[in-house]
Amino acid sequence: MEFSCESVVRLYDSDAAGFLFFGAQFRFAHEALEEFVAHIGQPIGATIRDRDVLFPVVHAEADYRVPLAVGDRLSVKVVVRALGDRSFSMAYRLLLADGREAGSVMTVHASVSAATGLSCPLPERVRTAFAPYLTAS
Amino acid sequence: MEFSCESVVRLYDSDAAGFLFFGAQFRFAHEALEEFVAHIGQPIGATIRDRDVLFPVVHAEADYRVPLAVGDRLSVKVVVRALGDRSFSMAYRLLLADGREAGSVMTVHASVSAATGLSCPLPERVRTAFAPYLTAS
Amino acid sequence: MEFSCESVVRLYDSDAAGFLFFGAQFRFAHEALEEFVAHIGQPIGATIRDRDVLFPVVHAEADYRVPLAVGDRLSVKVVVRALGDRSFSMAYRLLLADGREAGSVMTVHASVSAATGLSCPLPERVRTAFAPYLTAS
Amino acid sequence: MEFSCESVVRLYDSDAAGFLFFGAQFRFAHEALEEFVAHIGQPIGATIRDRDVLFPVVHAEADYRVPLAVGDRLSVKVVVRALGDRSFSMAYRLLLADGREAGSVMTVHASVSAATGLSCPLPERVRTAFAPYLTAS
Repeated sequence: MEFSCESVVRLYDSDAAGFLFFGAQFRFAHEALEEFVAHIGQPIGATIRDRDVLFPVVHAEADYRVPLAVGDRLSVKVVVRALGDRSFSMAYRLLLADGREAGSVMTVHASVSAATGLSCPLPERVRTAFAPYLTAS
Repeated sequence: MEFSCESVVRLYDSDAAGFLFFGAQFRFAHEALEEFVAHIGQPIGATIRDRDVLFPVVHAEADYRVPLAVGDRLSVKVVVRALGDRSFSMAYRLLLADGREAGSVMTVHASVSAATGLSCPLPERVRTAFAPYLTAS
Repeated sequence: MEFSCESVVRLYDSDAAGFLFFGAQFRFAHEALEEFVAHIGQPIGATIRDRDVLFPVVHAEADYRVPLAVGDRLSVKVVVRALGDRSFSMAYRLLLADGREAGSVMTVHASVSAATGLSCPLPERVRTAFAPYLTAS
Repeated sequence: MEFSCESVVRLYDSDAAGFLFFGAQFRFAHEALEEFVAHIGQPIGATIRDRDVLFPVVHAEADYRVPLAVGDRLSVKVVVRALGDRSFSMAYRLLLADGREAGSVMTVHASVSAATGLSCPLPERVRTAFAPYLTAS
């Protein structure tokens, strides 16, 4: 299954070269991740407030195929790429209105105990909520 | 008349003190401004692409009343505070779901010729489109 | 007394209109504030880690006089504008290499107990460290 | 040869989980890139102003090994990882004061004609200036 949400390229996402600043693509990815976890009942606000298990990014990567301009409307498609014992990976595709893939992002998140700062097993509630969106590349 | 749009406080809007980084409130204001100008038929993408008249911010200010947390959903209310010969002012109120005003922003924009970089009269098309939203404080 | 530090306008501070995105000027101000408090022995890292008293921004404003381009080198001049019982105000001037004032920023910070979230007296250590930089406008 | 510059983790780089927001690591990388190209006589301000050949990021990736806190001082080490006919790759290592590698970044830049938006050969002046820093991984 795939989760989908909408984004718009804002002035603050652009730079003086005239298009998206590459770092801003990670903003779209994280916005989509926050919408995704809210949708599956694991809202990020509660995760941070509870300070039980956190899921910091340990690896991130992005590809850029089409220069994005201010005002471009994007559909961001989210899937779970991997569900490990102590980590998970997310994949995001940024589609323009005409269907072209403007860019893609991948993030790998560790499961970390907020109390100890150490790696810990992925909570069952996360595994269960994410599982329907697990999609091989 | 008042324009309204929705925003969400994202992880990247927050800081290590646990709440909204103050500078991020200007992101919400500008996002709302971009939605507003799109709504009235003056989309920012075209304004930048045409490079005829630009509207840089010459003054900005913000008040902060309620600490905002990641995941908070905001309704941003936009009005035109002033329409001058060569500038305009916008006011934004950020409302939480329970109706409390979490913060407010004001931005003053000059009308500047992209060719010369000098102040120029506010284009009639902008004045006409903005006028219905002109609201004294 | 005045504190001074250096900054550079980065690509990520600019936008597709070709110059500084207005919100980025608050980044320069906060960078200068962080350098200032480190200089006077009240580093922000410790303030956040200790979670005793925090100093959230309750009001911020900025003026923009010269469009800033990527690569521009700035000297940021910092003074304390006011030292109240439960708040303080900072003023920042952004100077270009040729001495022109490109912009200015003001931030007002409340003194807030991290435990209760309520207003509290400005700690004496802060008042003492800030006092030499108190400068009327 | 390796280029080195200094950075500080700022409040605006952090998030409510208490550490560096992962996207901010790309800010450090680009800041270091801008310092590097200034050092070798190819300042980014001139590149953007001249609008001859631009070097947009077509791929970026980052690894995160140590959580970074506000106030942490970083030494960013920059090398050229590859110099292709129409692209180049940069590698960045973020070192803490105690020598630990907190994170690393890689960016791949295409050589693109600003006039046509199409891929073009890497200018000789860039190849010559970058060559001394070419370092296999």
